[in-house]
Amino acid sequence: MTQWVYRFGNGSADGKAAMRDLLGGKGANLAEMSNLGLPVPPGFTISTDVCRYYYANSKSYPNDLKQQVAASIAGIEKVIGCGFGDAKNPLLVSVRSGAKDSMPGMMDTVLNLGLNDQTVQGLAETSQNPRFAFDSYRRFIQMYSNVVLNIDHHHFEEILEHHKHKNRYNLDTDLNAGDWQQIVEQYKAKVQQTLGKPFPQDPQEQLWNAIEAVFASWMNQRAIVYRQLHNISAEGGTAVNIQAMVFGNRGDDCATGVAFTRNPSTGAKELYGEFLINAQGEDVVAGIRTPQPMSRIAAEASKSKLPSMEEALPEVFEQFMTVATKLETHFRDMQDIEFTVQHRKLWMLQTRNGKRTTAAALKIAINLAEEGLISQEESVQRIAPASLDQLLHPSLDPKAKRDRLTKGLPASPGAASGLIVFDADAAADMAKKGQAVILCRAETSPEDIHGMHAAKGILTSRGGMTSHAAVVARGMGRPCVVGAQEIKIDVTAGTMTINGKVLRATDKITLDGATGEVFFGEVATIEPQLSGDFAKLMEWADRTRTLKVFTNAETPHDARVAKQFGAEGIGLCRTEHMFFHEERILAVRMMIFAREEAQRKAALALLLPMQRDDFAELFRIMGADPVMIRLLDPPLHEFLPPSDVELETVAKACAISVTEARNRAHELHEVNPMLGHRGCRLGITYPEIYTMQVRAIFEAQLKVQAETGKAVVPQIMVPLINGKPEMVLLETMIHDVAAAVRAEHNGAAFEYVIGTMIELPRAALRAGDIAPHADFFSFGTNDLTQTTMGLSRDDAANFLGQYQHKGLIESDPFVTLDIEGVGELLRIATERGRAVKPGLKIGICGEHGGDPASIQFCQDIGMDYVSCSPYRVPIARLAAAQAALKGGKAAAKGKKAA
Amino acid sequence: MTQWVYRFGNGSADGKAAMRDLLGGKGANLAEMSNLGLPVPPGFTISTDVCRYYYANSKSYPNDLKQQVAASIAGIEKVIGCGFGDAKNPLLVSVRSGAKDSMPGMMDTVLNLGLNDQTVQGLAETSQNPRFAFDSYRRFIQMYSNVVLNIDHHHFEEILEHHKHKNRYNLDTDLNAGDWQQIVEQYKAKVQQTLGKPFPQDPQEQLWNAIEAVFASWMNQRAIVYRQLHNISAEGGTAVNIQAMVFGNRGDDCATGVAFTRNPSTGAKELYGEFLINAQGEDVVAGIRTPQPMSRIAAEASKSKLPSMEEALPEVFEQFMTVATKLETHFRDMQDIEFTVQHRKLWMLQTRNGKRTTAAALKIAINLAEEGLISQEESVQRIAPASLDQLLHPSLDPKAKRDRLTKGLPASPGAASGLIVFDADAAADMAKKGQAVILCRAETSPEDIHGMHAAKGILTSRGGMTSHAAVVARGMGRPCVVGAQEIKIDVTAGTMTINGKVLRATDKITLDGATGEVFFGEVATIEPQLSGDFAKLMEWADRTRTLKVFTNAETPHDARVAKQFGAEGIGLCRTEHMFFHEERILAVRMMIFAREEAQRKAALALLLPMQRDDFAELFRIMGADPVMIRLLDPPLHEFLPPSDVELETVAKACAISVTEARNRAHELHEVNPMLGHRGCRLGITYPEIYTMQVRAIFEAQLKVQAETGKAVVPQIMVPLINGKPEMVLLETMIHDVAAAVRAEHNGAAFEYVIGTMIELPRAALRAGDIAPHADFFSFGTNDLTQTTMGLSRDDAANFLGQYQHKGLIESDPFVTLDIEGVGELLRIATERGRAVKPGLKIGICGEHGGDPASIQFCQDIGMDYVSCSPYRVPIARLAAAQAALKGGKAAAKGKKAA
Repeated sequence: MTQWVYRFGNGSADGKAAMRDLLGGKGANLAEMSNLGLPVPPGFTISTDVCRYYYANSKSYPNDLKQQVAASIAGIEKVIGCGFGDAKNPLLVSVRSGAKDSMPGMMDTVLNLGLNDQTVQGLAETSQNPRFAFDSYRRFIQMYSNVVLNIDHHHFEEILEHHKHKNRYNLDTDLNAGDWQQIVEQYKAKVQQTLGKPFPQDPQEQLWNAIEAVFASWMNQRAIVYRQLHNISAEGGTAVNIQAMVFGNRGDDCATGVAFTRNPSTGAKELYGEFLINAQGEDVVAGIRTPQPMSRIAAEASKSKLPSMEEALPEVFEQFMTVATKLETHFRDMQDIEFTVQHRKLWMLQTRNGKRTTAAALKIAINLAEEGLISQEESVQRIAPASLDQLLHPSLDPKAKRDRLTKGLPASPGAASGLIVFDADAAADMAKKGQAVILCRAETSPEDIHGMHAAKGILTSRGGMTSHAAVVARGMGRPCVVGAQEIKIDVTAGTMTINGKVLRATDKITLDGATGEVFFGEVATIEPQLSGDFAKLMEWADRTRTLKVFTNAETPHDARVAKQFGAEGIGLCRTEHMFFHEERILAVRMMIFAREEAQRKAALALLLPMQRDDFAELFRIMGADPVMIRLLDPPLHEFLPPSDVELETVAKACAISVTEARNRAHELHEVNPMLGHRGCRLGITYPEIYTMQVRAIFEAQLKVQAETGKAVVPQIMVPLINGKPEMVLLETMIHDVAAAVRAEHNGAAFEYVIGTMIELPRAALRAGDIAPHADFFSFGTNDLTQTTMGLSRDDAANFLGQYQHKGLIESDPFVTLDIEGVGELLRIATERGRAVKPGLKIGICGEHGGDPASIQFCQDIGMDYVSCSPYRVPIARLAAAQAALKGGKAAAKGKKAA
Repeated sequence: MTQWVYRFGNGSADGKAAMRDLLGGKGANLAEMSNLGLPVPPGFTISTDVCRYYYANSKSYPNDLKQQVAASIAGIEKVIGCGFGDAKNPLLVSVRSGAKDSMPGMMDTVLNLGLNDQTVQGLAETSQNPRFAFDSYRRFIQMYSNVVLNIDHHHFEEILEHHKHKNRYNLDTDLNAGDWQQIVEQYKAKVQQTLGKPFPQDPQEQLWNAIEAVFASWMNQRAIVYRQLHNISAEGGTAVNIQAMVFGNRGDDCATGVAFTRNPSTGAKELYGEFLINAQGEDVVAGIRTPQPMSRIAAEASKSKLPSMEEALPEVFEQFMTVATKLETHFRDMQDIEFTVQHRKLWMLQTRNGKRTTAAALKIAINLAEEGLISQEESVQRIAPASLDQLLHPSLDPKAKRDRLTKGLPASPGAASGLIVFDADAAADMAKKGQAVILCRAETSPEDIHGMHAAKGILTSRGGMTSHAAVVARGMGRPCVVGAQEIKIDVTAGTMTINGKVLRATDKITLDGATGEVFFGEVATIEPQLSGDFAKLMEWADRTRTLKVFTNAETPHDARVAKQFGAEGIGLCRTEHMFFHEERILAVRMMIFAREEAQRKAALALLLPMQRDDFAELFRIMGADPVMIRLLDPPLHEFLPPSDVELETVAKACAISVTEARNRAHELHEVNPMLGHRGCRLGITYPEIYTMQVRAIFEAQLKVQAETGKAVVPQIMVPLINGKPEMVLLETMIHDVAAAVRAEHNGAAFEYVIGTMIELPRAALRAGDIAPHADFFSFGTNDLTQTTMGLSRDDAANFLGQYQHKGLIESDPFVTLDIEGVGELLRIATERGRAVKPGLKIGICGEHGGDPASIQFCQDIGMDYVSCSPYRVPIARLAAAQAALKGGKAAAKGKKAA
C-alpha cells in the first residue's frame, strides 16, 4: 500500500524536515516540530504524490486515499478528544496548501472546517461562548465560500456592513452572539442564492471539497504565471495540510501567547514575551486587553499588576520553558514562539527564528558562539550585512513622536533634521553660520556637491537609488531620500508642496534615510554605538574573507573615514569630482570652451598643480595601500556653466563672445550623454586632458616618494574602453608621459600599473583582447547595467517600481547585480581575461560593490576585490566573509593559504 | 644551400602566386606574371625567411645571401643588357618592401638605385637625355636619403623651391638639365652637412643599405602599432623586392601607356587605352602632352590627328594585344594594364582588375558569363552590391559644372537640387506649389517627416549615418547629406552660412547623396536606367541566395516600392511612424497627456480605427507575404508638442491648464531617452496602448480576410525585451486581446505569430529563456550597437570620425555590423534561441540589414532573413546571393533543396 498521508503531532511524525519534496515546506516543518517531541496540534499531510496522481488521472484520487485520510482524522480525534462532525463536541480543522516552494497565487487557508448548524451549537456549549462559536462559524462560511466555492468575499462584507450600519455598530467587537447568528443565516442565504444550492453541512463534504480546491489551485492562472516567472516546474505539485484547531479562549484554564527566547531588542539572554488568559492569538496583538508578561522577573521589572504566566499557570510555564530551551538548542538561534493553552494543555503553534534589531542580532550571534552553540563562522553568517548600516549612522529615536509627510526611496541611511533649503549655495552659506539644513531639490547635479556636503541630509523629488543624489550622499555618508514623487518644489516661489501642505524655508523637516520617510519638524535621533560586539564580529569576518575590500573615495576626508572603517585601499578615485571645487571650475570650463589645443593646454596647465596636490594627499593617507585612479570619465557638458552669469564669466576668461560661448555650450549638448562623448573617448579626442592627469599622478607620486622614502605605486584606470585599439593607444600615451616625467626627473625610478574599467558589454566580450594591455579589470557595474539592460538609471524610476510590483524584476538592478544578464558578462570577461592573463586582478567598483548579494556573486566568479563607498566598507567586509563561507570553507581557506 | 632569393622575369619565376608567406604579396604577384610568360622587368625577391633570420641573429644575414643576391643581379644584367654600377651603361633597380599583408608604416619604395656621379653620365649618354638622367638622380638622392638615411624630405624641397624662386621658375618642367645638375650638387652637400659624410656612391653599398632599411622598417614604431591594431603577428616578417628599372622615354622607339581590356565606362568589349611615344608613365596622366589612342578604330572614332599605337608601333601593338587577351583569360576579368616600351621591347609593369562604373561592371559580368569565361555564380560575385545604389537613383551628370560648398556624410544616395528651406511646414507648402526644395536643418525629428517627404533632398549639419534624417531619408529614397559640420544654420535670420558664404531661401543648392557633397546652384542630373543587365543579374542572384529579403516599411507607398524592388515581405513595420500624421498627432498627444487610464483609453479609441485602416492596407498590398508589425517603441516624449501653440491646442483638447500640460511635458523629459521609458516598457506600464494596437491588427486582419477570402497571418513584434518575464506578460496580453476579438466576431478563426526584437545585450544573453515564448527573433542592430558599444548614434559623430582617422575602428558600426562585439551577441542569441527552439525564425531589421558585409555575417550565423529599407532591397538580394556563395555552394544548394 502506497503511503499517501503523513501524520504529525503528539510527539512524533511520519515525516521530517528533509522531506520537503513530498510534504511541501509547511508539512515538513510541522513534522520536524513533532519529532522534537513538542506538543503540536495533531494533523496530517496529503503528499505531493497525490497531486501528481490527481493530474495524471483525470483529476481522480488513488483508491486508498479516502481510507488513509479517514484513519488520520480518527487519529486526530483520539489525541484531541473530539469528533469530526460530532454535534456535541466537534473537532475543527484547518486546511492549508503547501508546496515545496512558498507560492503566492495558490489557495491559502480554510480555518474552522467542520462547523455546521449542529456542530456550532456543540462548540457554543463546550466553549460556553456562543459568540465565539457563531463568529467562528461565519468566518468559516466566508473563507470556505471564497476559496472553495469561488464566491467573492465582497458579498459577505456587504452583509456585515449592512448589519453594522442598521444596528449603529462601529466595530466587529460590538456584535454579540445573536448578531453573529443572524449574519450566519444571511451568509448561508447568499450562498444558496448564488449557487442555487445550500452551504454544505456535511463535514466530510467540506473536507474533500477543500482538498480538491487546494489541488485545483495548483493549476490556476495566477499560480501558472507565478511558476513561469520564477522558473518553478509544474511537476512538483502541492501537498495539503490538515490540522486540528486549538483554542485559547475556551475558559480561564486556557491562554495564548507569543514569546522570544532572548530579548529581541537588546539581545540579552532572558525570556521576553506576553500572554493572555482566555484569549485568541489575535487578541494579544489587537491591543484590546493588556497582555501580561511571561515570567515573574519580567512582571516585577515592568511593575505589572497582573500575574505573570509563571504565577498564573506554573506547570504550563515550566513546560513552556523546557520547550523554549529545546527549540533554541535545536534550531541554534533565538526563537519566536506562538503557543496556545487549551484547558491547561500547551500547544505549540509555530516557532521560527525571531526577528531582532541589529544590535540584538550582533549580541546574540556573539553570545551563541561564546556559549558554544554555534561556531564563530556561523556567528559571522548570522548577521545580515546590510543591517550593519543601522549601527553606522544616527537613527531616529524609536520613542520620538513623528508627523510623517511622505515617503521616498531610502537612498542613504541615517537620520537628520534641518531647515529646508532649495539651493546649494544657500545651503553652504547657512551651514557656515552653523545652521542645520536639508537640501531639497528636484534632482541634484555635480554643481550641487558643496551644498550636499554642507547639508545634514538630502531630499529629492526625482531619481532612483543610483541617481546622482543617492550615489553622492552614500559616498559622503549623508542621509538621503530620493524620488519622493509627492513633493513638488517651486524654487522661484521658495516653497515645497507635499499633498497640499505647503512648506517654506523657515520650516524644519527630518529625513529617515533608512526607510525613505520624511517628517515635519525635528524628530529626536540617537547616535551610533560601535560596541565591542561590532568590533569582535568584524575581526571574525576579516579572518574568514578572501575578497579584499577597497573604497570609492577622492577626498582626503572620505579616504580617512574609509580607512577607519577598514578599507584596504582606494578602488575608485573619480578624478572628475575634483574638478568641481569652486576655485577650479573656471579653469575646467576654459578647457572645455577651448577650440584650439593650445588654449586647452593653457587651461590644463592651471589644473595640473591642483590635481597633483590632490593625488599627493591621497598617496600620503593610503601609504602602501593601492590607489586606483580613474581618468576623466563624464561627458564634458556636465561641467558647463549652469547660469548666464557663469557663462559670461567663462566667455570673459576665454576671451570669446557670450554668443560664441553659448554656441559652444550648445554643441556640447548630447541626446544620450550616457552613450556619448565621454570616458576614454575624451582622452583620445583631447589627448592633452589625459596627459595632464597622468602627469599629475606621476609628479605626485615622485613627490610623496621623496617625502616618505617609500615607494608609491599608483594604478591608472582607463574608463569606457570598448576594445583593444583604444587600450593600445592610451597605454602608449601613458608610457610616453612616464618617459617624459622620468626624463625631467633625471631618470628617477617609479612604478605604475595600468588597468581598465569594464563597463560596456563589448569590453566584456572582448576581454581576451584587452587583457594583454591591462593589469587589472575594474567592473563599472553601474554603467554596465545601464547598457546591458538598456536602462538609464536617471530615468528608470518612471517604470522600475511597476516592474517590481508586477514581479518582472526581483530587485532594483542598480542596487543588486542582475546576475543573469550583467552577471553573465562579468563571468565572460573574467574567464576571457584570465585565459590570456591568469594573474589579472579583477574587482568591482560600481554601487554593487557594497551590496551583499552582489558580493556573493563577486566571490563566486573569483574576483580579487570589491570597492564601495566608505560607509559601506563594514558591510562589504561582513558580506565578503559570508560569501567566502558560502563558497565552501575549503575554497576560502585554500585561497588564504596560497 | 638554402634558397634565400627567388628570381622572376624573362618568362619564368622561382615563385608563384601561392607563395605569399615566403615572398610577400608583391613578390608573389610579380612571380605569377612572369610564369604567364609575360615580359616583366626582371628582378628577384629576398624572402621573409631572411627577415626572420635577421632578427633572430642580431641583425645579421645568412652567409650565402650575398652570393645569391650577386648572382641574381647578374641575371638581371644579362636580361637587360646593362651593368649594375657600369659607368657607361648602368642598370638601375627599384627596391621595395613587401609583407604578406599590405602594411602602411613600413618603408615603401626606392627608385633608380644604382645612380651615382659616374653612372648618371652613362645614363645621360645612353638615353641621350641629360635632363632625364639628372632628374632621375636627384629623385633617387631625395628618396634614398629620406627612407634609408632618415633625412627629412623638407630639406630637399626647400633646396628645390629656393632654386626655382631664384630663377623665377614656376613648374618643375621649367628646369633644364643644368638646373637639375646644380640641384644634385646641393642635395649631396645637404647630405654631407647632415650626416657628416658623403652620399654613398657605391651601388653595392646603396643596395645593401636599402635592403637593411626595409628589414629595419618591419620593427619601427608605426609598423608595430599598425600590427597591434590589426592583429598581425610580428613573426611573418617582410620580403624585399629588387627589380630592373625600364624607361619609355629613351627615344622614339620607346613608349609608355595604360589600357583597359574592355571599356570601363560602358563595359563594351573593346580595347580602351592611351599611350605616348618617348614618355614616362607619369606623363600619360600629367596632361602636358595629349596621349594617343591605342587602336586604329579608337583613333578614328575620336578623330585623333596623331597615329594610334597600332599604326606607330604595329609589332609591339600586336604583341600587346596578345598579352592583354592572355591576361583577361588568366585573371578572368577586365584588366587595367600599365606597360612600357623600351627600344621596341614591351615590358609589363602591372596588371590588375580594372576599376569600372557600376553599369560597366554589370555588362562585363554578364558578358563574361555569356562568353563562358566565368560561371553565372561568379558573375553574381563580381558586382559590389553597394554599387547598385548608383543605378537606383538619379545621379549628377558627370559632365556638368559644379561649385562645391562643403562635404558631409553621404547618408542616402541620389542627387537633387532645390531651393533652400529651413522648416518642414514651409517645405510642404512650397512642394504643393510645385517648387523643388531641399530641407536644411541642424537635425531632423519625427515632427519633420511631412517636410522630408515633400523635399527633393535633405541636408543636416549634425548627426551621423544613422541619425533620424539619414534613416528616414534612406527609407523614403530621398537623397540626403548629414553631419555637414561646416554649415551653420540660423533659422531666425533665415540664413545658412558655409565657410563665410551666406545662403538664403532664394538660393538653390544641389546635394550628391552618394558622396556627401553639397553644391551651389543647380547641377544637372541623369536618370537611372534599370537595364536588362540589371534584371538578369537579379534573376541569377535570386537563384542562388538562401536568405529571404524583407523590407522596413509602414506606408502603402513604401510597401509598393519595396515589392517592385523584390521584397518578399515586410520585416519591420514601425507603428509609431503612423502616429505623426497631421490628423492623428493630436489624439496621440491626448493619450500621452492623460493622467488617468480612462482618459488614455478615450484617446486610444480615436486612434484605433486609423491604425486598423493602416494595417488593412498593408495586408492588402502584401497578400500572402509576411507582415511583421512592431508595437509602439519610442519614448513618449518624441510625440510632445514642439511649440507653445501646439501645447495650448493639446491642453485644450485634454481640458487641462497650459501649466499642467507643461508640467506633464517636463515629467516626460528623460536624461537618456534611448535607455528610457520606451519599447515594451510602455506596453507594460500603459497596457491599454498595446491592447489598442494589437486589437487594430486583429480587426484589420479579419477585415481583409473577409474581403479576399484568403488567410492573413500578421506577425506581432514586441520591442525592447530584456528577458522572459516581460515576454510572458505581453504574450498573455496579446492572447487575451485575440480571445476578446474572437468572441466579438462569433469565434471567427484567425492566426497570428508573436515574436520579439533582440536589441538589448541582456535579451541576447537570455535568448534561451525568451525563445519558448517567441516564434521569431528580429535583431534590432541599431539599438543593439548603441547599447553593446555604449554609443549613441545621435552623438557619436563628435568622435567617430577621429576614431576612424586614428584607425581605432575600421568602419562606422552603425553602417557595418561590429562583428566582434555586436556580432558575438547575435551569434550567442541565435545559438541559445535555436537550442531550445530549433525552428526559431531569425532575422535582422536594423540598418545593417541592407549592408553587404553585415549580410554576409547574417548568412554565416544561419539567419533566415534580412530586412532593409525599400531602396536597398536589390542590394540585399545581391549581397545575400554572394553570402550564400561564399558560405559554400554545397551549403547554399543543400538549404535550397530542403
